[in-house]
Amino acid sequence: MSNQQEIPARTVYIVSDGTGITAEALARSVLSQFNLSYARIHIPFVDNIEKARSAKRQIQEEYNRTGLLPIVFSTLVIPELVSVLREARALHLDVIQTFVEPLRMELGIAPKQEIGLSHQNMESTEYKNRIEAINFTLAHDDGQSNKELEEADIILVGVSRSGKTPTSLYLAMQYGLKVANYPLIPEDFERGRLPSALERHKNKLFGLTIQPERLSEVRHERRPNSRYASLENCRYEVSEAEGMMNLEKIRYLSSTSKSIEEIATAILSDMRAFSGPAQEKPPV
Amino acid sequence: MSNQQEIPARTVYIVSDGTGITAEALARSVLSQFNLSYARIHIPFVDNIEKARSAKRQIQEEYNRTGLLPIVFSTLVIPELVSVLREARALHLDVIQTFVEPLRMELGIAPKQEIGLSHQNMESTEYKNRIEAINFTLAHDDGQSNKELEEADIILVGVSRSGKTPTSLYLAMQYGLKVANYPLIPEDFERGRLPSALERHKNKLFGLTIQPERLSEVRHERRPNSRYASLENCRYEVSEAEGMMNLEKIRYLSSTSKSIEEIATAILSDMRAFSGPAQEKPPV
Repeated sequence: MSNQQEIPARTVYIVSDGTGITAEALARSVLSQFNLSYARIHIPFVDNIEKARSAKRQIQEEYNRTGLLPIVFSTLVIPELVSVLREARALHLDVIQTFVEPLRMELGIAPKQEIGLSHQNMESTEYKNRIEAINFTLAHDDGQSNKELEEADIILVGVSRSGKTPTSLYLAMQYGLKVANYPLIPEDFERGRLPSALERHKNKLFGLTIQPERLSEVRHERRPNSRYASLENCRYEVSEAEGMMNLEKIRYLSSTSKSIEEIATAILSDMRAFSGPAQEKPPV
Repeated sequence: MSNQQEIPARTVYIVSDGTGITAEALARSVLSQFNLSYARIHIPFVDNIEKARSAKRQIQEEYNRTGLLPIVFSTLVIPELVSVLREARALHLDVIQTFVEPLRMELGIAPKQEIGLSHQNMESTEYKNRIEAINFTLAHDDGQSNKELEEADIILVGVSRSGKTPTSLYLAMQYGLKVANYPLIPEDFERGRLPSALERHKNKLFGLTIQPERLSEVRHERRPNSRYASLENCRYEVSEAEGMMNLEKIRYLSSTSKSIEEIATAILSDMRAFSGPAQEKPPV
């Protein structure tokens, strides 16, 4: 099966007193370093002894059934729940406890051991800002509205299908930023100028570009065999858009081989580098 | 300042060979357990020796300046880069390495030590599915379209402002799920039936409800002093919507005190519980 060694499949449990989203992301990163096939079982909201016992039983049964140690990534902040879970025979990777202990030593203060402290509920200001950012971003997708652009934190520009919409939504969702996005279209290239609504907001503009070959593939999936998707047209649009961004001194990056998260992170790094060690909005 | 002990502020560094999003989420969770004020500095894309040296210098200078150990959460998979970073005087919390070692021991296989393995680029199938899911979800927000509902993975229903839109987008973005959402409106209550487009898709429906008091607050922010936002009307709509969901046997949960992530996780747990230990789409 594997091209290195044949390793029996393992069961990986993600056990959390919250959503388990952080534990899940970490488990994926760590496990991607091994050539291992595994099934993943997600047990969220383990916030009392009874649920911890139920998780423990489930894990123990898996061990009994297979004779292989299940792999358990857990984010539990209450030591009693950790103790219960640890009664199951498994490889226990305590994502929170592992780092709380050295911090306790270094800081000389006791951890709070309370569930849900990193959690934002619907009444917090950060949460409201985030919902407002999502609504703003939806209302300003694809140049839909020129209103309230002064409220935007970032305005993305680029040719159609260069990745503006998912990047905008990710920035709104993850960082609570209000992100408008505007397509650069053939009419703009003919006039040789940015859409006029954007002229006053040049300091907020950030561009996305993309390899013409890749753009053509993406557009063919949408509109097969159209002029819009043709490689010739994609080359023309990308070249014009890059020329315009260079002329207008708009910073830009290529989305070609990047994930949404990488594009978003690169934009934020770049904008911070240009605005100095700025007030960074925390991720939410 | 603090209501327990006064602790000097620390600088927390997030150093990653990728976006650092996982390290950042983990750092927030762990640090929320301490009554600590801190500044956070994000150093992403540290994927070669030179960048690792630059990060090391920056951290060392912070120590030299303050005499306090900076706190470093790092996700670096290449041991040489870890070694360079560790030359800085700091409290080093190696998020990946800490868990790779016990896994190596248990599995008896060597880690790959390659950057970007958990990363999806624009050419991967998962990535394409995710972008398609985001586009589908945008096109099916707020009952905009009845087309292609058979392609939907989930259809959320609930009164206006119960949290359907951000939850739908989160599920699409994070899990690559195609999520449509439909408002339940007074016309539906008068007819006493679900919107007709949804009848055929009852197995995909999931409801959101909300406390009328909270709904009224949220609606007042949008349309102050409107009948739409009045507590009386909110009570009527919520009561009718819950009645309809009970009658139609649609599972639902209250979004009142939950974050988007918690709502999304709870929906997925519930749907999995009802569909058995199903093919779980991996998070992306």
